[in-house]
Amino acid sequence: MSMKKIGVLTSGGDAPGMNAAVRAVARTALTSGMEVLGIRRGYQGLLSGDVFEMDLRSVSDIIHHGGTMLYTARSKEYNTPEGVQKAADMCRKLGIEGVVVIGGDGSFRGARDLTGAGIPCVCIPGTIDNDVASSEYTVGFDTAMNTAVDMVDRLRDTTESHDRCSVVEVMGRRCGDLALLVGIAVGATVILVPEVPFDFQKDIIDRMQFTQKTGKKHFIIVVAEGVGGVTELAHKIEESTGIETRATVLGHVQRGGSPTLRDRVVASEMGYKAVKLLESGRSNRVIVVREGKVVDLDITEALAMKRPFNKELYDIALKISI
Amino acid sequence: MSMKKIGVLTSGGDAPGMNAAVRAVARTALTSGMEVLGIRRGYQGLLSGDVFEMDLRSVSDIIHHGGTMLYTARSKEYNTPEGVQKAADMCRKLGIEGVVVIGGDGSFRGARDLTGAGIPCVCIPGTIDNDVASSEYTVGFDTAMNTAVDMVDRLRDTTESHDRCSVVEVMGRRCGDLALLVGIAVGATVILVPEVPFDFQKDIIDRMQFTQKTGKKHFIIVVAEGVGGVTELAHKIEESTGIETRATVLGHVQRGGSPTLRDRVVASEMGYKAVKLLESGRSNRVIVVREGKVVDLDITEALAMKRPFNKELYDIALKISI
Amino acid sequence: MSMKKIGVLTSGGDAPGMNAAVRAVARTALTSGMEVLGIRRGYQGLLSGDVFEMDLRSVSDIIHHGGTMLYTARSKEYNTPEGVQKAADMCRKLGIEGVVVIGGDGSFRGARDLTGAGIPCVCIPGTIDNDVASSEYTVGFDTAMNTAVDMVDRLRDTTESHDRCSVVEVMGRRCGDLALLVGIAVGATVILVPEVPFDFQKDIIDRMQFTQKTGKKHFIIVVAEGVGGVTELAHKIEESTGIETRATVLGHVQRGGSPTLRDRVVASEMGYKAVKLLESGRSNRVIVVREGKVVDLDITEALAMKRPFNKELYDIALKISI
Amino acid sequence: MSMKKIGVLTSGGDAPGMNAAVRAVARTALTSGMEVLGIRRGYQGLLSGDVFEMDLRSVSDIIHHGGTMLYTARSKEYNTPEGVQKAADMCRKLGIEGVVVIGGDGSFRGARDLTGAGIPCVCIPGTIDNDVASSEYTVGFDTAMNTAVDMVDRLRDTTESHDRCSVVEVMGRRCGDLALLVGIAVGATVILVPEVPFDFQKDIIDRMQFTQKTGKKHFIIVVAEGVGGVTELAHKIEESTGIETRATVLGHVQRGGSPTLRDRVVASEMGYKAVKLLESGRSNRVIVVREGKVVDLDITEALAMKRPFNKELYDIALKISI
Repeated sequence: MSMKKIGVLTSGGDAPGMNAAVRAVARTALTSGMEVLGIRRGYQGLLSGDVFEMDLRSVSDIIHHGGTMLYTARSKEYNTPEGVQKAADMCRKLGIEGVVVIGGDGSFRGARDLTGAGIPCVCIPGTIDNDVASSEYTVGFDTAMNTAVDMVDRLRDTTESHDRCSVVEVMGRRCGDLALLVGIAVGATVILVPEVPFDFQKDIIDRMQFTQKTGKKHFIIVVAEGVGGVTELAHKIEESTGIETRATVLGHVQRGGSPTLRDRVVASEMGYKAVKLLESGRSNRVIVVREGKVVDLDITEALAMKRPFNKELYDIALKISI
Repeated sequence: MSMKKIGVLTSGGDAPGMNAAVRAVARTALTSGMEVLGIRRGYQGLLSGDVFEMDLRSVSDIIHHGGTMLYTARSKEYNTPEGVQKAADMCRKLGIEGVVVIGGDGSFRGARDLTGAGIPCVCIPGTIDNDVASSEYTVGFDTAMNTAVDMVDRLRDTTESHDRCSVVEVMGRRCGDLALLVGIAVGATVILVPEVPFDFQKDIIDRMQFTQKTGKKHFIIVVAEGVGGVTELAHKIEESTGIETRATVLGHVQRGGSPTLRDRVVASEMGYKAVKLLESGRSNRVIVVREGKVVDLDITEALAMKRPFNKELYDIALKISI
Repeated sequence: MSMKKIGVLTSGGDAPGMNAAVRAVARTALTSGMEVLGIRRGYQGLLSGDVFEMDLRSVSDIIHHGGTMLYTARSKEYNTPEGVQKAADMCRKLGIEGVVVIGGDGSFRGARDLTGAGIPCVCIPGTIDNDVASSEYTVGFDTAMNTAVDMVDRLRDTTESHDRCSVVEVMGRRCGDLALLVGIAVGATVILVPEVPFDFQKDIIDRMQFTQKTGKKHFIIVVAEGVGGVTELAHKIEESTGIETRATVLGHVQRGGSPTLRDRVVASEMGYKAVKLLESGRSNRVIVVREGKVVDLDITEALAMKRPFNKELYDIALKISI
Repeated sequence: MSMKKIGVLTSGGDAPGMNAAVRAVARTALTSGMEVLGIRRGYQGLLSGDVFEMDLRSVSDIIHHGGTMLYTARSKEYNTPEGVQKAADMCRKLGIEGVVVIGGDGSFRGARDLTGAGIPCVCIPGTIDNDVASSEYTVGFDTAMNTAVDMVDRLRDTTESHDRCSVVEVMGRRCGDLALLVGIAVGATVILVPEVPFDFQKDIIDRMQFTQKTGKKHFIIVVAEGVGGVTELAHKIEESTGIETRATVLGHVQRGGSPTLRDRVVASEMGYKAVKLLESGRSNRVIVVREGKVVDLDITEALAMKRPFNKELYDIALKISI
């Protein structure tokens, strides 16, 4: 027999497109005859029973808004066996028979635990970092990248007018995907990511000086947050090359903004499929993109995966940004 | 033995990201030791020998520009056996041993013919319509969709303020992909595409009236160019529902603008791989996206393919935009 | 003695920045100790008593949204002496002692009549057309112009890639301001406005052919809605010059979108000053921009004014877009 | 007798709209029968004779580009009497009879000196900071403000999703105009500018806590560069209020980007009028906006002016952002 009532929450850092996922979850459940509770502020809100009944219009006119209408928060209490038990009890008290969790790997672990405590969960990867090992794509990644590109395109104007070098730190603590793709898109002379070690002289200075000889006078260097140190790097580059060099940290601006089409569409498809899984009695699953398609995996298997860095694309970047 | 000199041209309608492809072609060829000629205005320019020598800096600071720095044009003369022969002769005269052609299916047929006349060609799909049968993705599609979404998001403001219905025609003569994805992204109540027949009363009026009963007061209807007739449709909807209804044709604005990250990155990877194919002696190939990866196919086989419409996603759209 | 309760409404076509004005009105009144009623759907909503009590948080997070949170509508009933009387009675019933009206000249006439029926009104000019005679600036104008510029910048890419001419219709039925400023901003070779008669051969064809001789190959022609006829014009230009020419009507997209800084700031200052006027016992006033400053005028005097077209700037445009 | 040849240069920090000014200068001079030399990299380029002849097409398709096509640089050498003399000699050698200088107060002093050395100059205020005392408006200001607003609107999404406080540093070393207007436009609870001293407890904490009591859960605080110290400020606010608080420095991204309509139009009008002044034999003038109109002043008088901060608008901001 199908579920009568499900909950939906967003957890971890917010990401543009989360609202599209929430909307698809709510609409799919409602048109499939289930009730839907919106859970505010992630697992923390679940613990305190901070929920509201959603109808078809609760999610009107939100698909184009950044952030998450359900808010998000971290919860220390939930990160304990007692917390998980309490959350499961709250679900039972509220009549929640299944939960769709939108977030990153940390949120998936929470969902696995809640499933273990008897409340079936299905996850949707939502994080701007694209750092979910099991999925080629996470909701929010495209928007964050395009925001970064837009900002670096602006920097380029002033960098070019002054014959300067700009060293730009973009998001990505453990995962260099965002830096790699943004670096390609802005034509960065150098791209530094956590996955590839670099040699200051060979990989930065020599490359700059090679292109300088071909006539290039302004330079953009994209650095992932996980590499960091852009202020010192800018200083060292200016010292080594004599080219005026400035550091910029793009920061949290990259987290917001109206989601791109891709984030809205992927989130919509994932939200629909998450509910359909719950409806069909599946549980402990995560919706992912594999080989360009939206499919699903077991959460525990997904969490055990290791995401390979696209070294082939990185090498292509080096060849064309010269 | 590897090629010494290649040419690159853009053909058919322009698409954002074509410059990124040209840039990747030029840089890859030059760093692989080949010479590169930029051919202006497609096959027409090839016939008249309108070419220029490219160096590493010829393609500086163009990755973020819409349109095509090589210009594009239609050519009646090239569409004859004599024209193709003349173009091949011109290649030989100019020392062009291979050509990278960026465009749609029509441009691919031109490339197949030129290959047949002795000049190896490799193609890159570049068209905002995503109407290349052999590839899941064409350069320019993402930018065009996001432009359309941005425009409809603006329309939504005034549509909502006035409790109106907006009927919006988007690009897509034979292919409903753009209408489908834009329709999902803007939360359109109805999406009309050439691939799916529709019943005015059931698929439009009944849907509108159902959502109206749930409290919805403003409506967006997305119609592919290939369905057309938005002015009459708007008139009929206003008559049937009493809701003030306006038609808008987004038009050629969708063709331009700074390319999105996705178009820049896909174009860059495709440009690189196109040259590598020529370099390795392959010919009559088209670079495509299959299962989310950039691979290559024989042009003749690619042209024989039929692109399936994503009916599953269309049905999901109907369920969540309610 | 000061007013205890005021109302605020938006009327006529919506314009980006109206929300910023509503917000400033509500906050200023509330922090000055008054109550505020939001009146939905303009004079029509006032007639039916469709109002809601506003508090400081009612207008949170709306300053960046296009459209109007109060909705807008036309009202035939209000356009009669009986309608005005009924609206004034409704104000008295609801305890509304003064009303801030945001809209264009038509809305100002409504406010003058309501003042005449005993309910003091103050107006704020909000219309994307800048067609309010008494004010150098109307809320929404800057956003609409920048949207049009963004769209024409995109058109330029494809126009340039194909060596074409684009004839673009922009908003402005009676007032050529938007066409003039957009025309300057996009470098249009020709700008047609209702205020300046033109000769097809001399003002269009001769100018195009002069610049063609200097090397120009693509052209943008901006036409105000009040001149119209862009499809026929495009056809005639193509016939006369042999240059491929396309017509585009930007349409209602120009009405929406997140307001620019200028619209948000001017609307905020106007909203504040409107309430301060009511508070100080003034009535039948309209807030306007004169000589770059936000001041106020008598509505009746304001409605009698005739707005001069900036012919000097038009002549400058002709000299630099060549 | 009129001038035969003029030069044009951009100096100091680049600003969006400078290209529109250069374009208007070149076109106006050329259509008035003068020759025009583009001088690269400001006074430094003038000293070394780094110039090029401009024609009508030299400035095609640049009006929508950020930065400056003439590049800009600082020059120590020019800042000496010998440098000025050498620059004047170079003008005579190149046949330059007058120069249009686009930049800020520092650039105006250079123009005054060059005029003193016998080369008539006219200036155009171009700086994103709006810190030119004599003009209500400087070219680039509107673009920089809208860029900042767009970035803070994005920050708002994540700030709201997490119930946080964001402390944002915007441009403006000596001049709080940008912070004030951006602060109003984003609805900042607190705005800190160099012109107005503030008390941490009363002006920040008390205001935040007052609005918190009315239901507000997320906060934006805009700080001018000239006030600075956002990291420490964020730390202190978090300590005092318990609200999670993050600092962001928007940085050089604010300097670039396609100019807004306002910057393109004001720059165009100023460029035209600068040449007309030179043509009519006037010299040592600066084009400014006064009372909303584009007029001109003597440079020396202009440099002696002191710009008043708009305290009235600042007080309005405090009343409506609550």
